[in-house]
Amino acid sequence: MQKKGLLHQVIQHLCCLPGVGPKTAQRMAFQLLQRNRDNAKALAEILLKALAEIGHCQQCRTLTEHTLCEICVDASRDTTTLCIVESPADVWTVDQATVFTGRYFVLHGHLSPLDGIGPDELGLDELERLLAKGEVKELILATNSTLEGDATAYFIGELATKHKVQASRLASGVPMGGELEFIDRGTLSHAFKGRRKIE
Amino acid sequence: MQKKGLLHQVIQHLCCLPGVGPKTAQRMAFQLLQRNRDNAKALAEILLKALAEIGHCQQCRTLTEHTLCEICVDASRDTTTLCIVESPADVWTVDQATVFTGRYFVLHGHLSPLDGIGPDELGLDELERLLAKGEVKELILATNSTLEGDATAYFIGELATKHKVQASRLASGVPMGGELEFIDRGTLSHAFKGRRKIE
Repeated sequence: MQKKGLLHQVIQHLCCLPGVGPKTAQRMAFQLLQRNRDNAKALAEILLKALAEIGHCQQCRTLTEHTLCEICVDASRDTTTLCIVESPADVWTVDQATVFTGRYFVLHGHLSPLDGIGPDELGLDELERLLAKGEVKELILATNSTLEGDATAYFIGELATKHKVQASRLASGVPMGGELEFIDRGTLSHAFKGRRKIE
Repeated sequence: MQKKGLLHQVIQHLCCLPGVGPKTAQRMAFQLLQRNRDNAKALAEILLKALAEIGHCQQCRTLTEHTLCEICVDASRDTTTLCIVESPADVWTVDQATVFTGRYFVLHGHLSPLDGIGPDELGLDELERLLAKGEVKELILATNSTLEGDATAYFIGELATKHKVQASRLASGVPMGGELEFIDRGTLSHAFKGRRKIE
């Protein structure tokens, strides 16, 4: 067996991908090295290029190979609303799912004092400078609906109040198509508290 | 959106991996470029190295970065039995699952005249030379249990007869733990035909 050979090393490194275990990595490695050599080469090269060139947008901190990302550069987007998200992936998710036309600000995580992640690590100093300019009128706090996400949203909400900017949090409740029977207690109790009048 | 940017290219190329769709590729790309940069670099580099160095073993045709693979080089392995498989992945699978201590021969496919894959493309000329040497006493035909795999096994069986080498085919029937109710007709009919006396 080529356990310690190059092939095994390829498999080991493929295992670092999310959701890829040893079996899948083995299948991937054989496919890349046998049937798909051109694409494998292109993948490796584009990955190296991306690692070298992609950094953070200087304004919204999302991933980009330019100084400013395409959303920050886009003059057609509303500069008065800012959507705060935890990760660059969330920028894509929100942009694909909603009609939001404002800009984003990426925290790259959430407040987690035990892990040494405070306001500065999340770029909240940059966010404050942005708010101080007075252009932004509304913050949409789209951090995850977790304890840490809520705490982070609360903290940023305070910042917004300080700078007299309106802040809102994504609605939380029963997901579309969700059947009550299968919904966890926390969500259901939230949905009850946040019930809306039918007009 | 960075649809045409480097990030999007990385995602596109990740989609070529087996079992990876656009959503998974997106998650992989973000993970590689954000949290896992060192491993991403190592993966890209080892992949390029593997693509450049890994070729086929000159004796059994499996993937290896050396002239002969580790199994062919291993003097402790039985040189009188040869297991014929369709792909290098099958070499690993058989070696991990069984106590087989012989050597392998990799076809890299199966006979498929319509696709222009004949005996020469499968290295059967090399196999014949190997059989002609007289060292091999038994062939185990472990091609897939498909129409093409069966046809290929039959063809190689003929070769074996010509060289007076004994050939055997993997047993086919009900898989271990398989419940009759969920087994397809073909398998069940095979299992009936191939039933064995209880001693």
